[in-house]
Amino acid sequence: MKFEIQDVDALGRIGTIEINNKKMITPNLFPVIHPFDNVIGASGLKDLGAQCVFTNAYILYKNTDKREEVLKKGIHDFLDFDGVIATDSGAFQQYMYNDNKIEISPEEIESFQEKIESDFPVILDIPVQLEDTFEVAEAKVSKTLERAKENISRRKNPNCYWIGPIHGGKFPDLLKKSSIEMSKLDFGIYAIGGLVKAFLQYQFELTLNMLITVKKNIIPNKPLHMFGLGLPQFFSLAVACGCDLMDSAAYILFARENRYFTLSTGTKRLDELIEFPCHCPVCTKYTPAEVRTFEPELRVELLAKHNLYLSFSELRTIRQAIRDGDLWELVEMRIRNHPNLVNAYRMIKIHEDFFEQYEKVYKNHGRLYSSVESVNRPLFRRYFNKLESNYRVPKEIKYLIIIPELDVKGTYSLEVQKWLELINKEVMREEIHVIFASSFYGIIPYELMESFPFGQHEGRMEIMQNDQCNNALKNTKFFFEKNQAKYDKIAILIPNEYVNELNKKAEISKNNVIFMIEDYLMSKFKDKVSIFLNIESILAYFNDGL
Amino acid sequence: MKFEIQDVDALGRIGTIEINNKKMITPNLFPVIHPFDNVIGASGLKDLGAQCVFTNAYILYKNTDKREEVLKKGIHDFLDFDGVIATDSGAFQQYMYNDNKIEISPEEIESFQEKIESDFPVILDIPVQLEDTFEVAEAKVSKTLERAKENISRRKNPNCYWIGPIHGGKFPDLLKKSSIEMSKLDFGIYAIGGLVKAFLQYQFELTLNMLITVKKNIIPNKPLHMFGLGLPQFFSLAVACGCDLMDSAAYILFARENRYFTLSTGTKRLDELIEFPCHCPVCTKYTPAEVRTFEPELRVELLAKHNLYLSFSELRTIRQAIRDGDLWELVEMRIRNHPNLVNAYRMIKIHEDFFEQYEKVYKNHGRLYSSVESVNRPLFRRYFNKLESNYRVPKEIKYLIIIPELDVKGTYSLEVQKWLELINKEVMREEIHVIFASSFYGIIPYELMESFPFGQHEGRMEIMQNDQCNNALKNTKFFFEKNQAKYDKIAILIPNEYVNELNKKAEISKNNVIFMIEDYLMSKFKDKVSIFLNIESILAYFNDGL
Repeated sequence: MKFEIQDVDALGRIGTIEINNKKMITPNLFPVIHPFDNVIGASGLKDLGAQCVFTNAYILYKNTDKREEVLKKGIHDFLDFDGVIATDSGAFQQYMYNDNKIEISPEEIESFQEKIESDFPVILDIPVQLEDTFEVAEAKVSKTLERAKENISRRKNPNCYWIGPIHGGKFPDLLKKSSIEMSKLDFGIYAIGGLVKAFLQYQFELTLNMLITVKKNIIPNKPLHMFGLGLPQFFSLAVACGCDLMDSAAYILFARENRYFTLSTGTKRLDELIEFPCHCPVCTKYTPAEVRTFEPELRVELLAKHNLYLSFSELRTIRQAIRDGDLWELVEMRIRNHPNLVNAYRMIKIHEDFFEQYEKVYKNHGRLYSSVESVNRPLFRRYFNKLESNYRVPKEIKYLIIIPELDVKGTYSLEVQKWLELINKEVMREEIHVIFASSFYGIIPYELMESFPFGQHEGRMEIMQNDQCNNALKNTKFFFEKNQAKYDKIAILIPNEYVNELNKKAEISKNNVIFMIEDYLMSKFKDKVSIFLNIESILAYFNDGL
Repeated sequence: MKFEIQDVDALGRIGTIEINNKKMITPNLFPVIHPFDNVIGASGLKDLGAQCVFTNAYILYKNTDKREEVLKKGIHDFLDFDGVIATDSGAFQQYMYNDNKIEISPEEIESFQEKIESDFPVILDIPVQLEDTFEVAEAKVSKTLERAKENISRRKNPNCYWIGPIHGGKFPDLLKKSSIEMSKLDFGIYAIGGLVKAFLQYQFELTLNMLITVKKNIIPNKPLHMFGLGLPQFFSLAVACGCDLMDSAAYILFARENRYFTLSTGTKRLDELIEFPCHCPVCTKYTPAEVRTFEPELRVELLAKHNLYLSFSELRTIRQAIRDGDLWELVEMRIRNHPNLVNAYRMIKIHEDFFEQYEKVYKNHGRLYSSVESVNRPLFRRYFNKLESNYRVPKEIKYLIIIPELDVKGTYSLEVQKWLELINKEVMREEIHVIFASSFYGIIPYELMESFPFGQHEGRMEIMQNDQCNNALKNTKFFFEKNQAKYDKIAILIPNEYVNELNKKAEISKNNVIFMIEDYLMSKFKDKVSIFLNIESILAYFNDGL
């Protein structure tokens, strides 16, 4: 098995898995199928875009007839699927139904999975339940680790790349321990277990925190899987936090309850739909009224197909967003699907140092900030780090001009270009420092303006929100507490009007960040701060002091 | 022609237009086609879901051969389209290309449109340009009004329902005048003109303000159309602000430039796509690499089809959202497509009294607040109005208990149920008023809790943002300034912990709105306000005073 990473954005990764002459892309979804009783079989899934499926070896093993058949044919022929096949061991039954009477030994089921040539078999782990106490959870984690080691010593089929389950329930310490210890053992994929019930309760904050905890501690060169993640509205956020793979039967389980996935108006019931709000091949062919009259089997099949079309196109959207460096933008859109997703997004801020480490240094086009939550992106943390550790005000500087943010960022504005021309003609130009006010970044020194991402973002400037203000103010304060002594005079430019992008006169908005910077500087360094209506008077003021 | 409204949400309306034995639903898009030179003809558009098309009568008229043919056949046979057909008069050419040499008279082109049996012809209006001065714009508006009156006096074909253009450019007074005066004249559809260039520059705030100004003043029983609106990311916001119909050639113009619509990662160029992030019949059949190798004509056709599939499914999504009462939820998701859409959304707040008037009184399921911007919805304005004008504290009340917002709203919380049981058992229950703290509404009196929309919203409570705080505080202040004298004692319940939805102990978040209410009440009415850890001590405190 080979796992090669082609591109990254946030903690999301586009990769290729090559295994036993099969190939699949990540991030990707393994649709879960029953081993022999499906509305859409494995080959049907392939037509819908599935490169991989997940099925249950335990159910196969318990059925004597099918067991013989699959042992003879191998799982690929048995399912009539030439893509990647992962198999579960029965542990999921245990977890999902709290069924502790799974009558099978690890030796039996693991050896069975090797014999049927599963590409990615799962060991018989001991899933932790969310309600488990620390002690119970700890014992289960240790037992799973033990089983993992035993599994390794028993392995016979070199074509099987084992999935190593990570557990710990709601306890970060256990998740950490499980991740670190499992990383020492050779597995093809590491997979976080015990999440499904949390997904079904929309506990996205909890599951995301579990994911991030594991991601921080797991070996990075293997795919990270989330067992049971099938809600497409959560895919992008999970991928941005490091999830490479997922498996789920949600597409079919929801279809059986006449539930229809959307990424815009929540999960709908078939009977509340007058028109299908979608353009997949199913939804462009039929109307909801027609589908309601169909036989149950056909109805379930069509709804399941729609649910899968939507899931797979969301994965393609996510992969495209990773390639474009737009994954955060996509996530900030998708979290509007549920308030719990918005709450979960806070985790990015809480773990900002971790995310900052992995954030791309350069992206080939500008960022779009269309949410208050945008300010939690790791780039902002990175900028603060830079101000803190790297940035020095040029040595010869004596004077500072602070220029307001206009409708177009930085030097893209004709008005700003005019200002800069005037400044650049000044004889003592070398002693003058120019800083741009920025609603998202607070202050940006002129010499950094061309470097990513400052010159290139389009944000919302009209309404300054709490978080945004806090961030801008934090950077401003930090900068001036550190650097104010370098300046003899600080001039703030607040013109009555300026020429905007459309070549029209416009006023500086009352919400412009420049007023916040003015307030701060006047309250702290009143003696050397002055406000001016134009560049000419600023230069005269500087010269006056010579 | 009949226009019947079936359902409404925000200012969006689902309606049916019946005209000349044809039927179409609103909101809807007229794809614009060339009269005789198309990559996708009218019948092809029908297969994609178009119920109506827009074509250009002026181009037909100028072509002698085609003119004879269409006069013989009528426009429906000529285009081979049995749906609704609207025709333009040449004024759009004038507007778009500032071409003042349109050599045609209103008499000629309007009579021509009647002869070819256009369902919705447009009069030869004089479009206002955005850069026109007030005087120039005013003259154009007057001229268009004059032409409208002349048109009415000349009408011969009773099967033609004329489209009346509304103009005014960026001047609200002119838009208002144009709307009021045109409303007095009999037109089938009223249509706002002069917008295309603003759409292309993403000036959504300006165009939305123009739309709202017209909507406020136009006769309400006719469809309101926006000429040239074809960017699907703007559809939902425009519909929420009263747009019933739109027409555009963007699907094909963009396709010619290899541009591909998305509603999640911006408009893409074909050459930057590795996978199609979509599941329409085109995108599930081909890969971007394949489409790039196709002949230009096929390539443009496929991209245009994708663009239309997306446009039509967005319209179905919008109509479903209107039926579900979820249009604001959808809009708050779609505005993330561009910061200018977020800025434009401010218009809802600015015109909140207008939107409040039309907001549905009852919706059959709860609201979802997943954005800071949610607080701008008209429902919040309505609540304030109610507090202001209707609400009275029950007469016998002497004491007040304020209960914090927990993870589940109001009485859905088991913990809150326990508190209420204790309160209800109290002998002097009738003298006790109960108020719920609410991060979105500030305070909600218990007796209103069951009425829409209080009991039924799912919001984000964890992070209080500026706008949200302001709204909660505004209601809280207003309520207590008006009603505080009714209470001898005010008790605020702030328990150390509570039992949450998952039956686990949880702490009250530091960001809980109860702390803001506490701060406010302590600063204003310190003498009668006390904080308690449990209901029992509150009741003891009240009894103590007897």
